[in-house]
Amino acid sequence: MKFLFSICLFICLSFSSFAKDGYELWLDYSPVENAEMKAQITPLFSGIFFFGESPTYEVIRKELEIAGQKMLGKSPVYSPDRLGSASLWLGTREQLSQVLSLDQQVKIKDLGEDGFWIGKIEVNGKSYLSIVGNRPVGVLYGAFHWLKSIQTETFDQNTEIADNPKVKLRMLNHWDNLDRTVERGYAGFSIWDWHKLPGYVDPRYTDYARANASIGINAVSLTNVNANALILTTDFMKKAKVLADLFRPYGIKVFLTARFSAPIEIGKLKTADPLDPEVIEFWKRKTDEMYSFIPDFGGFVVKANSEGQPGPHEYKRNHAEGANVLADALAPHGGILIWRAFVYSHEVDEDRHKQANLEFEPIDGKFRDNVIIQVKNGAIDFMPREPFHPLFGAVKNTNLGMEFQITQEYLGQATQWVYLAPMWEEVLKSKTYRPAPTSTVAGIIDGTDSGQKLTLMAGVSNIGTERNWTGHLMAQSNWFAFGRQAWDHMLTSEQIADEWVKLTFGQKPEAIAKIKDIMLESHEAAVNYMMPLGLHHIMGRSHHYGPGPWVEGGRADWTALYYHRADSLGIGFDRTSTGSNALAQYAPELAQTWSDPNQIPEKYLLWFHHVSWNFELKSGKTLWEEIGLHYDQGVKTARKMQETWSSLESEIDPERFHHVSQLLAIQVQEAEWWRNSCLLYFQTFAKQPFPSEIEKPTGDLEYYKSLEFPNAPGIRPRW
Amino acid sequence: MKFLFSICLFICLSFSSFAKDGYELWLDYSPVENAEMKAQITPLFSGIFFFGESPTYEVIRKELEIAGQKMLGKSPVYSPDRLGSASLWLGTREQLSQVLSLDQQVKIKDLGEDGFWIGKIEVNGKSYLSIVGNRPVGVLYGAFHWLKSIQTETFDQNTEIADNPKVKLRMLNHWDNLDRTVERGYAGFSIWDWHKLPGYVDPRYTDYARANASIGINAVSLTNVNANALILTTDFMKKAKVLADLFRPYGIKVFLTARFSAPIEIGKLKTADPLDPEVIEFWKRKTDEMYSFIPDFGGFVVKANSEGQPGPHEYKRNHAEGANVLADALAPHGGILIWRAFVYSHEVDEDRHKQANLEFEPIDGKFRDNVIIQVKNGAIDFMPREPFHPLFGAVKNTNLGMEFQITQEYLGQATQWVYLAPMWEEVLKSKTYRPAPTSTVAGIIDGTDSGQKLTLMAGVSNIGTERNWTGHLMAQSNWFAFGRQAWDHMLTSEQIADEWVKLTFGQKPEAIAKIKDIMLESHEAAVNYMMPLGLHHIMGRSHHYGPGPWVEGGRADWTALYYHRADSLGIGFDRTSTGSNALAQYAPELAQTWSDPNQIPEKYLLWFHHVSWNFELKSGKTLWEEIGLHYDQGVKTARKMQETWSSLESEIDPERFHHVSQLLAIQVQEAEWWRNSCLLYFQTFAKQPFPSEIEKPTGDLEYYKSLEFPNAPGIRPRW
Repeated sequence: MKFLFSICLFICLSFSSFAKDGYELWLDYSPVENAEMKAQITPLFSGIFFFGESPTYEVIRKELEIAGQKMLGKSPVYSPDRLGSASLWLGTREQLSQVLSLDQQVKIKDLGEDGFWIGKIEVNGKSYLSIVGNRPVGVLYGAFHWLKSIQTETFDQNTEIADNPKVKLRMLNHWDNLDRTVERGYAGFSIWDWHKLPGYVDPRYTDYARANASIGINAVSLTNVNANALILTTDFMKKAKVLADLFRPYGIKVFLTARFSAPIEIGKLKTADPLDPEVIEFWKRKTDEMYSFIPDFGGFVVKANSEGQPGPHEYKRNHAEGANVLADALAPHGGILIWRAFVYSHEVDEDRHKQANLEFEPIDGKFRDNVIIQVKNGAIDFMPREPFHPLFGAVKNTNLGMEFQITQEYLGQATQWVYLAPMWEEVLKSKTYRPAPTSTVAGIIDGTDSGQKLTLMAGVSNIGTERNWTGHLMAQSNWFAFGRQAWDHMLTSEQIADEWVKLTFGQKPEAIAKIKDIMLESHEAAVNYMMPLGLHHIMGRSHHYGPGPWVEGGRADWTALYYHRADSLGIGFDRTSTGSNALAQYAPELAQTWSDPNQIPEKYLLWFHHVSWNFELKSGKTLWEEIGLHYDQGVKTARKMQETWSSLESEIDPERFHHVSQLLAIQVQEAEWWRNSCLLYFQTFAKQPFPSEIEKPTGDLEYYKSLEFPNAPGIRPRW
Repeated sequence: MKFLFSICLFICLSFSSFAKDGYELWLDYSPVENAEMKAQITPLFSGIFFFGESPTYEVIRKELEIAGQKMLGKSPVYSPDRLGSASLWLGTREQLSQVLSLDQQVKIKDLGEDGFWIGKIEVNGKSYLSIVGNRPVGVLYGAFHWLKSIQTETFDQNTEIADNPKVKLRMLNHWDNLDRTVERGYAGFSIWDWHKLPGYVDPRYTDYARANASIGINAVSLTNVNANALILTTDFMKKAKVLADLFRPYGIKVFLTARFSAPIEIGKLKTADPLDPEVIEFWKRKTDEMYSFIPDFGGFVVKANSEGQPGPHEYKRNHAEGANVLADALAPHGGILIWRAFVYSHEVDEDRHKQANLEFEPIDGKFRDNVIIQVKNGAIDFMPREPFHPLFGAVKNTNLGMEFQITQEYLGQATQWVYLAPMWEEVLKSKTYRPAPTSTVAGIIDGTDSGQKLTLMAGVSNIGTERNWTGHLMAQSNWFAFGRQAWDHMLTSEQIADEWVKLTFGQKPEAIAKIKDIMLESHEAAVNYMMPLGLHHIMGRSHHYGPGPWVEGGRADWTALYYHRADSLGIGFDRTSTGSNALAQYAPELAQTWSDPNQIPEKYLLWFHHVSWNFELKSGKTLWEEIGLHYDQGVKTARKMQETWSSLESEIDPERFHHVSQLLAIQVQEAEWWRNSCLLYFQTFAKQPFPSEIEKPTGDLEYYKSLEFPNAPGIRPRW
């Protein structure tokens, strides 16, 4: 009877897994059907032993319960002692010190505070598969790795695994407002229900922590960088404490955004001058209070003097003076101050591209040790493709962290399937030629090239209240990929896609291959149908939804015309020495190559050069022709993605199949809209016919220009 | 093997039903364990035959599939023909005309367009359980009734059932904005994802339609009465069409809110004067266009000249002139114009209570036949308890509809368990003494007393993006109860609670009794700890969250002082002839009784009278003592609700148990907060000690007054 029940439960769980709403993310644990794998793991699930106790081990037990039920149809069995019936050991190096060899201990110690080791330990002729870390959280990461390797069918108990993250802080930045709107959010609204906290703790918070821990994310900034000082009031600290307490066993530290003018807004001071003694005292008092609620509070994230946010410039102080007052308040508690490099105002230079370097290079070395400057991957603003930010390599004595945007502000928003890992990989692997000739962006970020100890990779979250977390089911892969790349930037986007697809859709070889195909071509497709060949910032105004190459008027560097500079002669932003000379902010090796329109990679051509419509590209075709071909190729790839997906109807559960199918249909329409709008618009300058190979853009340019989307998601709501 | 699979599936579905997130609402279909019931229904599920086809029958088939799987663990079986293996017949009276007796046909015909009949039809000595309506939607309502009767264990195939709704339009009003914020919404954000429509159709829309149809709701207004004219643009019509198409088989018609100034905002006219020929033409053209997309479009809902909304008064036209222009545009298509009676501006009278009657009585009879005036249950604004609105009975020649508020703006918002049916029942059963001495509010609404043919009961929706739809799980009962009361106002709140609890929690006698106990005392508890004895409008400003008896300044009739009028002598709003004389708007029989503070029901005392603190109530205690006792009783009942719920831990699944437990803890705190704030505040006027029997209010009045909630839900978000 019990056996029958077990079978039923198993069938039940596999059956219920057909109704897929996406809530389970990559922790869906499909039933293990591979007989060999089952034979390997069944005994392991039947003799689990933890060396010692920790709230984190409770978390592991809960995960093993879920995974055991879903993969094998039964609860894990725990061994009462380490020998006897035990077969799987978990614990820290210290806890296992009596059973680990000296070699093993050294090896594990070298893995650092978040690393883990999975291998066999022999005692009395019996071997025990062991998951060991230097801290309980390392054991947690190891356990998640082990569960993942079962799902991806890569687990082999005879293969030792040692892994540790390359970056210390692997962080999500939520741009979530206290009223639950999310700036640039396309997955509903904020999952943080501040109003009902601290009394009501949504079960979703736990699943959020599980998901993050499973991919190694260990820090979360809960609030928008366009900050509200209220978060620093006692009432909100009590609310944040509940989340911090809940996340702690998952190894996740809470950060909050600090509004630079908070001393005025909630401190009742007349100034926020960072050198004012009362302001210094305010930040110290507020920080001490925060640590009284959250003893392991991570620190503050600050956006200052950027897009209207207050900052030290109001008091004629520089960014270092602004950052250090907060850093000093945090330092006694071991807290970290993250200061964003995305700063610009239209007074500073004629090219916004240059501004961060202009402001930060002169104060290199002036920041406290516990400050990290968080730099967007490129100098403009998360465009579909950007060359790496010239700050990477330009400053030598300041901790630099990476900021990627997981939410798809410029890459399809709520409706497009764009796998972002290839774009991030491209940035991380970019050669900076500084400080060493072999340096890369990744090497600066992780300290190997820069020597910095405090390392950070942050991603702007794409998570919201939608049942499937990310709105577009496939956008889950971007959350996943961000975590994986932050852990190990040597992973390729293909490897990460492979893991994610298997964890999300199970072991279906044909489906896996096709879904990966779509993912891996999706980013290039989006670049092509939106902003190919180095074009940038030609999207709709304010909401950034859809094409807007005609956007002009108002603040210059918020228009499209400022960036594409199309005229009767050509198109592109001259950032060489004949133009803004932003190129000079890069290492000379790069600046030299890139300043030649015949040598620069064509994907960056119009980013740095104003080029004649008749300029000949490597294909032998003119620029005008290639622009047409790129836009058209983007649309064709989108259609191909749709066709490939359609062929999977029998492989994918109906709920997810239909969800993605509907969105792909929208994506194809939006790709056509981009192509038609941009080509018709640019043709008014180029005054040339379209290349014969491409599908002619259709529609009426005036109609496209007239479209308005006052309620597009991700912007300030208007009633 | 197949048998085994069936068993497994059954166990699986019952097992998975332990993980309850509330999404299933009252359509959870718990497994039928009662052997007798199972014996009755098993053959019925094994021989289903539909007489004819209809998209609505597809909907019924889907519901039978879900219900069959969940209740019996198997799919329903359809009979290929009406005789043979058939046992359950479904169809319209016309479709079944050959098998129905003449008596049966007459009886069914009398049930009208939405009624249904469930009974046995004998043919060739075999009897067939039959679900028959005059239209397919009647069959749908019958099918839902049948499924409900199985779940509540009231189904008996030998008992004939005939039922039909008392009100023609049973309608939800969504106060949902196009940017997905919801005015006075406490369950997340709007389920209408306008941005992704028409391309992306959220599966949730279908479950929304199922839920509404299952309780007889047949009309939904999708947009906020504080309207945005954009909804009348072609783009939005295309989006609304998708929803209308989806809802149609469920018998649900779509209404939209029309902004009175739309002719200016989207029509590019200089005026919205309802008598202007271009304005008349605008509404005709827009309405015709709407019907080209939605041939059975329900009509418009309009809030005009109220709280800043534009309206006919700007052009010196009255409400009838304003309403009739839209009504005339709708009439050729069979559309209905719903005009809200919630109109007030502070220029009109010293007592807002009187304003609707002052504006609508003089134009009684001036509205077109297809206009309904939608009147809130009371004259102020959905207070925890209000005497019925004096318009009911005052106008004789105008269609009046009821507007209830399901969302708990003034009744606990996001965190309190308050079952609203007793409040609505109290209003519906109130005697108006007009037009006939025996008339009631319900009799006016349903036409029996008023003679009106076009009847309406509308409820302001409490639905949002929260997984469980209503935020507080228990608030589902208010959605359910609204639908049931709109269908049949003779049902008692106890009967409705009984149905809902059984459908939601299954057949657990002890749990059912206790949950019903909590529900039935919850509204009186809330009145007591918020606004007892006729107190009203003493909540926090703007967001209306928590107590605010001290709210003063700004527009007078938006303050608390305006309404409670506490002074050293007493408290209460004198609405007798010595005061505003609002009482004169009621029937003389009522006005006379209520004008005597010794005769008026004490629950309305301070609504109509300014009474001395030492006024003696029926209990023999003074008003001041009774105010204290009522507030204290409210808190005690809230605590008792919490205790009762705690005793159910072993009866309720952990997910729902914990959800409600957390919220009840908040509710007790909020009840104490209300009591302490109000009593401490009123004591500053009464200057008397608290009665010895009550728990003394604690806390610091100045502290309570200082509390601010700028991000409370349900109001315009601020970044």
